Amino acid sequence: MRGNTFGKLFSITTFGESHGSALGVIIDGMPAGVNFEPTKLQEELDRRRPGRLKETTARNEADKFEVLSGIFEGKTLGTPISIIVRNTNQKSEDYSKDMYRPGHADKTTELKYGHRDYRGGGRASGRETLTRVIGGYFAALIIPQTDFMARITQIGTKQFASELNFQESNESKLGLSEAKFDDEISNYLLDLKKDGNSIGGKVTLKIYQPPIALGEPSFDKLKADLAKAMLSIGSCVGINFGIGEDFTIKTGKEITTEQSNFGGIEGGISNGDTIVMTLSFRPPSTVGQKAKEGRHDPCILPRVLPVVESMAKIVIADHFLRQNAYQI
Amino acid sequence: MRGNTFGKLFSITTFGESHGSALGVIIDGMPAGVNFEPTKLQEELDRRRPGRLKETTARNEADKFEVLSGIFEGKTLGTPISIIVRNTNQKSEDYSKDMYRPGHADKTTELKYGHRDYRGGGRASGRETLTRVIGGYFAALIIPQTDFMARITQIGTKQFASELNFQESNESKLGLSEAKFDDEISNYLLDLKKDGNSIGGKVTLKIYQPPIALGEPSFDKLKADLAKAMLSIGSCVGINFGIGEDFTIKTGKEITTEQSNFGGIEGGISNGDTIVMTLSFRPPSTVGQKAKEGRHDPCILPRVLPVVESMAKIVIADHFLRQNAYQI
Amino acid sequence: MRGNTFGKLFSITTFGESHGSALGVIIDGMPAGVNFEPTKLQEELDRRRPGRLKETTARNEADKFEVLSGIFEGKTLGTPISIIVRNTNQKSEDYSKDMYRPGHADKTTELKYGHRDYRGGGRASGRETLTRVIGGYFAALIIPQTDFMARITQIGTKQFASELNFQESNESKLGLSEAKFDDEISNYLLDLKKDGNSIGGKVTLKIYQPPIALGEPSFDKLKADLAKAMLSIGSCVGINFGIGEDFTIKTGKEITTEQSNFGGIEGGISNGDTIVMTLSFRPPSTVGQKAKEGRHDPCILPRVLPVVESMAKIVIADHFLRQNAYQI
Amino acid sequence: MRGNTFGKLFSITTFGESHGSALGVIIDGMPAGVNFEPTKLQEELDRRRPGRLKETTARNEADKFEVLSGIFEGKTLGTPISIIVRNTNQKSEDYSKDMYRPGHADKTTELKYGHRDYRGGGRASGRETLTRVIGGYFAALIIPQTDFMARITQIGTKQFASELNFQESNESKLGLSEAKFDDEISNYLLDLKKDGNSIGGKVTLKIYQPPIALGEPSFDKLKADLAKAMLSIGSCVGINFGIGEDFTIKTGKEITTEQSNFGGIEGGISNGDTIVMTLSFRPPSTVGQKAKEGRHDPCILPRVLPVVESMAKIVIADHFLRQNAYQI
Repeated sequence: MRGNTFGKLFSITTFGESHGSALGVIIDGMPAGVNFEPTKLQEELDRRRPGRLKETTARNEADKFEVLSGIFEGKTLGTPISIIVRNTNQKSEDYSKDMYRPGHADKTTELKYGHRDYRGGGRASGRETLTRVIGGYFAALIIPQTDFMARITQIGTKQFASELNFQESNESKLGLSEAKFDDEISNYLLDLKKDGNSIGGKVTLKIYQPPIALGEPSFDKLKADLAKAMLSIGSCVGINFGIGEDFTIKTGKEITTEQSNFGGIEGGISNGDTIVMTLSFRPPSTVGQKAKEGRHDPCILPRVLPVVESMAKIVIADHFLRQNAYQI
Repeated sequence: MRGNTFGKLFSITTFGESHGSALGVIIDGMPAGVNFEPTKLQEELDRRRPGRLKETTARNEADKFEVLSGIFEGKTLGTPISIIVRNTNQKSEDYSKDMYRPGHADKTTELKYGHRDYRGGGRASGRETLTRVIGGYFAALIIPQTDFMARITQIGTKQFASELNFQESNESKLGLSEAKFDDEISNYLLDLKKDGNSIGGKVTLKIYQPPIALGEPSFDKLKADLAKAMLSIGSCVGINFGIGEDFTIKTGKEITTEQSNFGGIEGGISNGDTIVMTLSFRPPSTVGQKAKEGRHDPCILPRVLPVVESMAKIVIADHFLRQNAYQI
Repeated sequence: MRGNTFGKLFSITTFGESHGSALGVIIDGMPAGVNFEPTKLQEELDRRRPGRLKETTARNEADKFEVLSGIFEGKTLGTPISIIVRNTNQKSEDYSKDMYRPGHADKTTELKYGHRDYRGGGRASGRETLTRVIGGYFAALIIPQTDFMARITQIGTKQFASELNFQESNESKLGLSEAKFDDEISNYLLDLKKDGNSIGGKVTLKIYQPPIALGEPSFDKLKADLAKAMLSIGSCVGINFGIGEDFTIKTGKEITTEQSNFGGIEGGISNGDTIVMTLSFRPPSTVGQKAKEGRHDPCILPRVLPVVESMAKIVIADHFLRQNAYQI
Repeated sequence: MRGNTFGKLFSITTFGESHGSALGVIIDGMPAGVNFEPTKLQEELDRRRPGRLKETTARNEADKFEVLSGIFEGKTLGTPISIIVRNTNQKSEDYSKDMYRPGHADKTTELKYGHRDYRGGGRASGRETLTRVIGGYFAALIIPQTDFMARITQIGTKQFASELNFQESNESKLGLSEAKFDDEISNYLLDLKKDGNSIGGKVTLKIYQPPIALGEPSFDKLKADLAKAMLSIGSCVGINFGIGEDFTIKTGKEITTEQSNFGGIEGGISNGDTIVMTLSFRPPSTVGQKAKEGRHDPCILPRVLPVVESMAKIVIADHFLRQNAYQI
């Protein structure tokens, strides 16, 4: 009831403060007998890791995970999978008890609980997202035929192709939809960092070959659950399905049938076509950085991509199991 | 698990197909001893009613409600409140078994269940939203100090003031943020209707004086639950908090502290300031209307306003009770 | 969160006070396309009906149900099924505002809510159980191969065969496991009634041919969920699985393997064998009856049998869907 | 949905196999700012520890816990508390892949998942109960005025006083309600152990000074949730509230008002008086012990007492928060 669990039949329950002993996740609802490949999970975690790119944050933690339960002889047991990642590189002196960083949870955490771990972002730290990536790794194993692709399609005023191309975008080390802009954006981010400034942008997510008939007709429409999943990411400030702004200015006759489905959702339920959405992210708060030499990103978009994909994987896997339950 | 319940401590469970006997809602989690005023509930329902405006739909149902339980001597009992609204004006001949209206749930309902009530939108009909308005009426009684105001700030390419003004916008019978555009928009919608065409637009929602400390730091951030609530409305295709698009193009230094809070949410938790969001709605599908003389709106925005407010009321009331639970 | 919903994937949400307009139930999670037979549902309701037997209560209501949603052309739609039963025969003058019947919820309802419908048992009335019987009817359709049989095996100090025999016990109009005792017990109950007295007893429930692998290894053991289901029935004061008292006095070596499984549950999970449990019921409170001429039973056991079977059906159907969800 | 979470507003989510790396628990819903005393938690864990008594099991593990999150500067943060206990003393050679111990989950786990950790009881091991004791420790902090006392009132055919006396029973190192029988029972258990035999019995639980108005009138009656909690303990085969068997043989007039409330529950809701229940436990299965030299108890009752108390603490704390939520 305190919002630390996400998902119903496939769920993740996460815990951990950024400056406590460890972060962790319990994956509940993983079917039994599925192969677990530790190196693939590590790869996913490394995509999210701070310090991977010189353009982003300086906090360089290994994020080595330890499996505590739920796996035996390389396969899932069907019992809860518990995985923890130790916190090894905290510099709590970067923070102070009386500093409330604007736009962060510092003040509201104090309002809510009256007692907080002031050494960092606590529960609301971006570091919490590593537990989501672990969850996403397992979720994807439930729906192996479905591909998830999140790419940066806008940073500040610079826009990149919204038509995602696997090959081209995979070459971008920043996760841009067009690799050829890597150098330009890299320099732009380094300049912002030097200046103590920051920038937001947009991420386009495509879900290829989703199972059909996922989502429920009333409150748990697939778009509703995807929206909650994405807006639960700290810096995400908006989500728009399909053609976005065009939905509000074009007349009904100007919108094609395919467009009106957002590619793949009709009446809240997937029809099997590719699902498309665009997420807006705000720039990281800069005020706290002035006060103390923090280790924050000028732009969180490159690191947020695996988190976006993971949340989508969890939603789709969960709804897949929900739909499967009633096929008797 | 089939998504017919929304909310945790304050919840609504809804039922009913558009062409069945009745629609209804169970409100669970309503505190006891609260005054129930039937005329006020009827007023809220009337705001949503089709046929209220000549510019919109022709389906003119009275939407008279009946209370089956949970109220005694004019006060809530603390037990589940059940309220139904009979369907009295269905014209099922407007629809046919083999017609799948694009963008509607017709085809996906068939995919999902293999058996559907083809006489109308069934469970996914816009008519279902009246049950949400009933839920919203009761939710608001839990948080009487909080005001909710949804107004149309864009229809097609025409934009209206995003700074909402109670007095001015209350004069607009269409629910525009600026009443002076009523005639112009009224004519525009009548033309679209005549032409079998339709239009979408934007709605701005403001939540004034919300309780502080609502929302949870991880998955149940207030913005996440509001996003789910809004995207569970059929035609809603996007949500953007605070300054919207500006978040993606301005640098961190260009964004004021107040803006970065979306007015009132920091780290997913309310700080007591006004909460602001903008919702995008697509135009109603026009293809089905060509095939048969349906009774659909050229624009659902005027009628969606009480639904938007109601979903917000339910989210805020639910989180208020959640937060209250832990104040021991 | 106020405990008006039971079940997870197959759930019933119930509402209604004994002296309000109606009682009702929403069945959520019913698979689509299943035949609904109104006469069979009515038969189940009639088994529970007060006034059916002269030995029990005098309140004689027809309990005619009305389907509001979820059924179309004689088949389930997969959407929530809502069914109501109007209250037609309330005699609220039997009760008074200031009377707290001991052992009933009168006083605790007042303590809990501060406002109650004093005209009868309100939400906690035995009449609420008719909504469970409706839920049980649908649950059974999900697991057609499984049989549920509840029979009275003890009334007061009189014991009947605990080995249930379908043919013999079906001949008992009181629901005794041995029909030959019907007259004796009938006279005994009429004497108690005349005397303003009451009696409890025991019910044995057998679940034949349950699906295998139902129940979860930790908190949602099948025996745990069955126990909750049964103890949620007002007068039920105890549940014992398998050989009951013998478990506490025999040594491990004296208990056969089959006995230690309660017939069919090992480690909380069904193995396919018949599941056996015995329920204890206390006599209805007699104090209130002295004060006013109520219409209560001297013994609720004959009428509780379909309620016991229905709660078991809901538990088994729910766990069946839960297990089915993970078979991918 | 796989039953690894118990509780709604105060919940524990547990994980871990008996022969995996660690067992653990996430406590969610703990209010912030409450003092945590590690030594008191260790004391509770030690009461449950195998090997504490020579009469019981030989498995002697330290059960040292590690707090991973949710505590800062000696106080709860309001965020999820995660605590793990490493497995250090597993002897997996005691078990074999093809051995299904009767009455255990071995066979049904295989049926359910098709893949199991055959080195021990896996998820269904009695060792899992240590996570419940951790949860109970925190639950008790929410309701400090309430006392929980579970004592052994029967072992085999030997009965002890059912009127619990704190001072007298605290002197019993076996947890008997009468300390004077310690030597006799100790010798009896040692004989059973030598003989490869085992015994069950009964535990009486009293809840002193529970908060009033806990429990809901329909499915979540306090007795229903307590029954589920207790029957989720592996060896528990029955629960009887109040005067137990006497409820089934005495007439309504023979039962006093206080008795009919089980001491403290009317209509499913607590009235503030002491709540009383008796639990039946079967003897541990003896068949597996013949096959291999296991390390199992001849009698689990002495060790189950803190588990029984802990489950009751969790139920009461959870319902306390639920009731508190609606006091606005």
